[in-house]
Amino acid sequence: MTTRRFSAPEHPDLDALYGDMAGADVQPLWLLEGLMTATPGKASGAHAWRWKDLKSLAERAGDLVPIERGGDRRVVALANPHLGGRPYATTTLWGAVQYLGPGELAPAHRHSPAALRFVLEGEGVWTLVEGDAVPMAPGDLVLTPAWTWHEHHNPGSEPMLWFDGLDLPIVEALDAVFFEPGADREPNRSVAERSASELRYGGGAGLVPVGGRPAAAHSPLYAYRWADTDRALAALVEQAGGRPAALRFADPSTGRDVMPTMRCEMHRLPPAGATRRPRRVGSSIWVTFRGGCVAHVGEERFALGQGDILAVPSWAELSFEAREQADLFCVSDAPVVEALGLDRLGAGPGPEGGE
Amino acid sequence: MTTRRFSAPEHPDLDALYGDMAGADVQPLWLLEGLMTATPGKASGAHAWRWKDLKSLAERAGDLVPIERGGDRRVVALANPHLGGRPYATTTLWGAVQYLGPGELAPAHRHSPAALRFVLEGEGVWTLVEGDAVPMAPGDLVLTPAWTWHEHHNPGSEPMLWFDGLDLPIVEALDAVFFEPGADREPNRSVAERSASELRYGGGAGLVPVGGRPAAAHSPLYAYRWADTDRALAALVEQAGGRPAALRFADPSTGRDVMPTMRCEMHRLPPAGATRRPRRVGSSIWVTFRGGCVAHVGEERFALGQGDILAVPSWAELSFEAREQADLFCVSDAPVVEALGLDRLGAGPGPEGGE
Amino acid sequence: MTTRRFSAPEHPDLDALYGDMAGADVQPLWLLEGLMTATPGKASGAHAWRWKDLKSLAERAGDLVPIERGGDRRVVALANPHLGGRPYATTTLWGAVQYLGPGELAPAHRHSPAALRFVLEGEGVWTLVEGDAVPMAPGDLVLTPAWTWHEHHNPGSEPMLWFDGLDLPIVEALDAVFFEPGADREPNRSVAERSASELRYGGGAGLVPVGGRPAAAHSPLYAYRWADTDRALAALVEQAGGRPAALRFADPSTGRDVMPTMRCEMHRLPPAGATRRPRRVGSSIWVTFRGGCVAHVGEERFALGQGDILAVPSWAELSFEAREQADLFCVSDAPVVEALGLDRLGAGPGPEGGE
Amino acid sequence: MTTRRFSAPEHPDLDALYGDMAGADVQPLWLLEGLMTATPGKASGAHAWRWKDLKSLAERAGDLVPIERGGDRRVVALANPHLGGRPYATTTLWGAVQYLGPGELAPAHRHSPAALRFVLEGEGVWTLVEGDAVPMAPGDLVLTPAWTWHEHHNPGSEPMLWFDGLDLPIVEALDAVFFEPGADREPNRSVAERSASELRYGGGAGLVPVGGRPAAAHSPLYAYRWADTDRALAALVEQAGGRPAALRFADPSTGRDVMPTMRCEMHRLPPAGATRRPRRVGSSIWVTFRGGCVAHVGEERFALGQGDILAVPSWAELSFEAREQADLFCVSDAPVVEALGLDRLGAGPGPEGGE
Repeated sequence: MTTRRFSAPEHPDLDALYGDMAGADVQPLWLLEGLMTATPGKASGAHAWRWKDLKSLAERAGDLVPIERGGDRRVVALANPHLGGRPYATTTLWGAVQYLGPGELAPAHRHSPAALRFVLEGEGVWTLVEGDAVPMAPGDLVLTPAWTWHEHHNPGSEPMLWFDGLDLPIVEALDAVFFEPGADREPNRSVAERSASELRYGGGAGLVPVGGRPAAAHSPLYAYRWADTDRALAALVEQAGGRPAALRFADPSTGRDVMPTMRCEMHRLPPAGATRRPRRVGSSIWVTFRGGCVAHVGEERFALGQGDILAVPSWAELSFEAREQADLFCVSDAPVVEALGLDRLGAGPGPEGGE
Repeated sequence: MTTRRFSAPEHPDLDALYGDMAGADVQPLWLLEGLMTATPGKASGAHAWRWKDLKSLAERAGDLVPIERGGDRRVVALANPHLGGRPYATTTLWGAVQYLGPGELAPAHRHSPAALRFVLEGEGVWTLVEGDAVPMAPGDLVLTPAWTWHEHHNPGSEPMLWFDGLDLPIVEALDAVFFEPGADREPNRSVAERSASELRYGGGAGLVPVGGRPAAAHSPLYAYRWADTDRALAALVEQAGGRPAALRFADPSTGRDVMPTMRCEMHRLPPAGATRRPRRVGSSIWVTFRGGCVAHVGEERFALGQGDILAVPSWAELSFEAREQADLFCVSDAPVVEALGLDRLGAGPGPEGGE
Repeated sequence: MTTRRFSAPEHPDLDALYGDMAGADVQPLWLLEGLMTATPGKASGAHAWRWKDLKSLAERAGDLVPIERGGDRRVVALANPHLGGRPYATTTLWGAVQYLGPGELAPAHRHSPAALRFVLEGEGVWTLVEGDAVPMAPGDLVLTPAWTWHEHHNPGSEPMLWFDGLDLPIVEALDAVFFEPGADREPNRSVAERSASELRYGGGAGLVPVGGRPAAAHSPLYAYRWADTDRALAALVEQAGGRPAALRFADPSTGRDVMPTMRCEMHRLPPAGATRRPRRVGSSIWVTFRGGCVAHVGEERFALGQGDILAVPSWAELSFEAREQADLFCVSDAPVVEALGLDRLGAGPGPEGGE
Repeated sequence: MTTRRFSAPEHPDLDALYGDMAGADVQPLWLLEGLMTATPGKASGAHAWRWKDLKSLAERAGDLVPIERGGDRRVVALANPHLGGRPYATTTLWGAVQYLGPGELAPAHRHSPAALRFVLEGEGVWTLVEGDAVPMAPGDLVLTPAWTWHEHHNPGSEPMLWFDGLDLPIVEALDAVFFEPGADREPNRSVAERSASELRYGGGAGLVPVGGRPAAAHSPLYAYRWADTDRALAALVEQAGGRPAALRFADPSTGRDVMPTMRCEMHRLPPAGATRRPRRVGSSIWVTFRGGCVAHVGEERFALGQGDILAVPSWAELSFEAREQADLFCVSDAPVVEALGLDRLGAGPGPEGGE
């Protein structure tokens, strides 16, 4: 099952054997090259996208492609050039920028791939998740877990742009994709200031309602607000004596990842802060929310400014140096890798935050 | 193994048999009455203590018993008169009022029974838990989990009174009590505004630090602040359309109970709110933090005002009616009952909060 | 909360205070002696019962006390003399010898305390657990988990004697005892060679039926046969190079303990084998099934022959030396101690079996 | 994110936009067809391979391709023609037939993809898993879990053929493949009758050794013997009143699947037995070990005789009818699908075995 291969078949009957094998829908392992690699990461590479480009392209699409022509979602997908034309940011993660113009409505649908939104620009939009209206603002993480109905509303006068993260490549690899469009109905356009999910589960650290937790694999809390994230990061950095720190977004009722296929984190690098992460199995996407930094992935160097997005493949060496304070949102496939017992760390320093 | 008993031994050899049994350190089951009861709760009963009494007695003890004469802790234990003189509030829970006067210090010790504090009156006290200074104020829940070092400081000018809850009767029944006094050393008297545990784990709903969770069976967050509790309860009541609601204090990194032996909850009854709980296995103590209500336990009626404390035995029918808005802190042995598969609910309505 | 106590109250008002406290159903902690001990085990001690005595007493009871006079169960309870007259073997465990004479039937009942039987002598008895007829023979472990209906039948011509283990002291301490007698009906007297529970779950190591596991906290397998136990122990000893070894009886579908409150193990000491166990929190009962050995509990020495039973308190030092090969059945409260986070090992060698 | 697409871009600036998008390594979602399908299974199909073909091809390879020319493993991979030339049996599972001739040795290596062997023909082979020599015989299931060293020895005079199942497509999709060849050393050629893993963990249903379970994600038991499987299936069929039954191979110490990525089951259809399984997410491979049956997958019909192998895609309708008693080994990706919360059953009868 190695990839060693010998030069050529010598025996005259081998050609006939290989022909018969092909006819019988089998393949000889010893002619399959590259089936197993010494380490991961050979099939992919790091790539960065510039916010300037993404925003400009999304805005032009906003002008030229009405949402009903955009197949319900005006989404510009990150297509990592190392992935041979597939519209994916990494081997396991879909990343995209979504643009919702003033007055627009992206109608309801649901799908078994799970999605998350991390808001980059705009105000006044809300999304309806399983009937619960969730306001969106910059820095907020909003979940639309697997098979939940969701639709996006922009009743305001300015567009909103957000980052979309999905586990689509994983769900596709497992041949587990279901999709269902919503009924054509006039949607409810009234919206509360806080979602029901926040009223019930957003009370604070370790405060969970008595009774009634839905038996779902995902977080019952659909929105994590930037004001809370910012305050929590500041406390972590204070407690860490000014060193970089990171928080993980969790199901407040179980502490598990927000969804079974994606881990979400927010990392803060104080000015002049630097971190180095050990190699790890699994890929990730990093979205620069505030500030700027330099990322090193293996031998490559990426200068990241506000809104820039970086895709990092499995088993890559990764480090960051902040020029000014930098806040980075990260989504990864870590829960999948861990659930299947495939997690492994390379040599190197422990990760930031004292992990 | 029933408790049916027949009148008297008829056979003349029985006396000799019973004598020989006694000599051999065995007992005949058929002479043991009351070994198994049809339902629990026979060995206990409900009882209420008045804050007026508790406070007055604690204050008098504050005057008359210096803390070094009080065995390090000036604690007035609730001794449920249904428990035959044992100093326990229920069969499984210790409840008490602790009084710490101005300038006093309750020195360090640790024990395998777990303890919690729910603050009732006073300001400016802090407790040192495993070296982490935790400020205390009314309405706060503060944990000193099993086998953590703890000492209490009152550098201010007014006394503090708090409710102590311990799992001592359980740990004693399991013959698992360890106790260790602290070294005689001059304690650190400087204190931060927020404990390190709060800086790390108090960030907000579903925001947990990356890395470094201690592998403990208890919550890494030692303090749950009244301001957060109050706000979360208000949101729950709003989401419940004005009906009574309750929250459970949880380990923010796992969602489990704060400690493996005690469940802590805060219940809010809006004015004129009423709840009825089904009978359940396990006992509880209820501390009236704000407002007043009437509790019915079986056939008994208890009017509860601010500071009053109610002990409720296993398998009792329990209901509350609020006169004004009432906030009740509740500690119970529910995690123990559930871990051992002994939980059972009687007929009746579902508990409040949609449980 | 220590146990230090000062000589006497000096202040003249103290008597009045203590009187008022008594009237208010509270007790001053500082007058409560011995509330917390430095280590467990102070309230109990080891004790051994001789099979010769137990069997003789049980047989005499069989002659003199008809089963209908024995309250449905002819049970001789081990009453550890260190427990002040309570009919318990340890602070947490009930141990007893049950005697069922030829032609007798112990009618159906159920209770929330869980029970297990370890058969010592006799043939031909079967017990009906939740309608499933389970044959019993020497060396078999048979479960009647919490709240399962059970009745015992002896259709044969010789008596059976077995060891009963129950978690009654724990369930009583939690005030969680429920009991229900069975209906008076003519019981089914036909019995299969193997119980349904064995046909489904007794298939072999790691072979579990697809579908249908009951959602119970206890093992779905009600009987563990001596022939299997014996063979498994021989393999373990072989694999351990002739050193002592032990197996744990587990739920075959989860690997957890057979019931949530009691751990069952079988220990084999080869001839001249010796083991020393570290102190541990929690108590245990040891039943000598075959062979003989010497047990040391702290400073005490107990020579154990076939059928002898030893009760070991919490936090005791325990070691065994075999004279000939000895097979010891052990039931302990370890799952309770572990579930509540109270487990702790003292210094010393690791336990047998490479634990 | 639907797959609806409108006919053509009308706006003259759209071409420029799409060109700029391509240049910026992004893709417009609304031009991506087929990204989400209504249900799974569109990308694959069922396929059957005949044992006659597989055996003949493997034997010819045995003659023509020495093992050192076969890249260490003489493996004929099932290449489902619905998968576009990829050497996989289903989207998530590798299936193959491996042939080890008399006197041959497949040298040591290890890899992060997990492997299992189900033996079809031959005697006398043993495999070395992490230094533990495991004999192999027909009907045995033998595990070589992720990252365990393994090598195969045939000291006998007849060849062995076995089915290989691997999670390679999943581990590849997660970019988590590690591979390491073993050192060139003279292997140990002595072999015990039973592996150490069986001596420790093969004792019987619910009998697990005290102490020392390795903290691995996979079963510590490496071999499940046909004699045990056969006996357990017979008991299940008896208990089911002669209806079809199935068992799952489990970690005896936890009840979990033998490895975190693959579920292994053995299904027995008594003569004239028929089962229908609801659609389910996830794919499977079925190996006919004994007897014969007809499988229906959707609209397709496959007559299966001894040794024939069937690949079943995700969300397919599947039913079996036995002509004679048929024993089918099944490997599936069910643990992956369930761990990620993607499991779903279609309408239809419950699965066999009372699931």
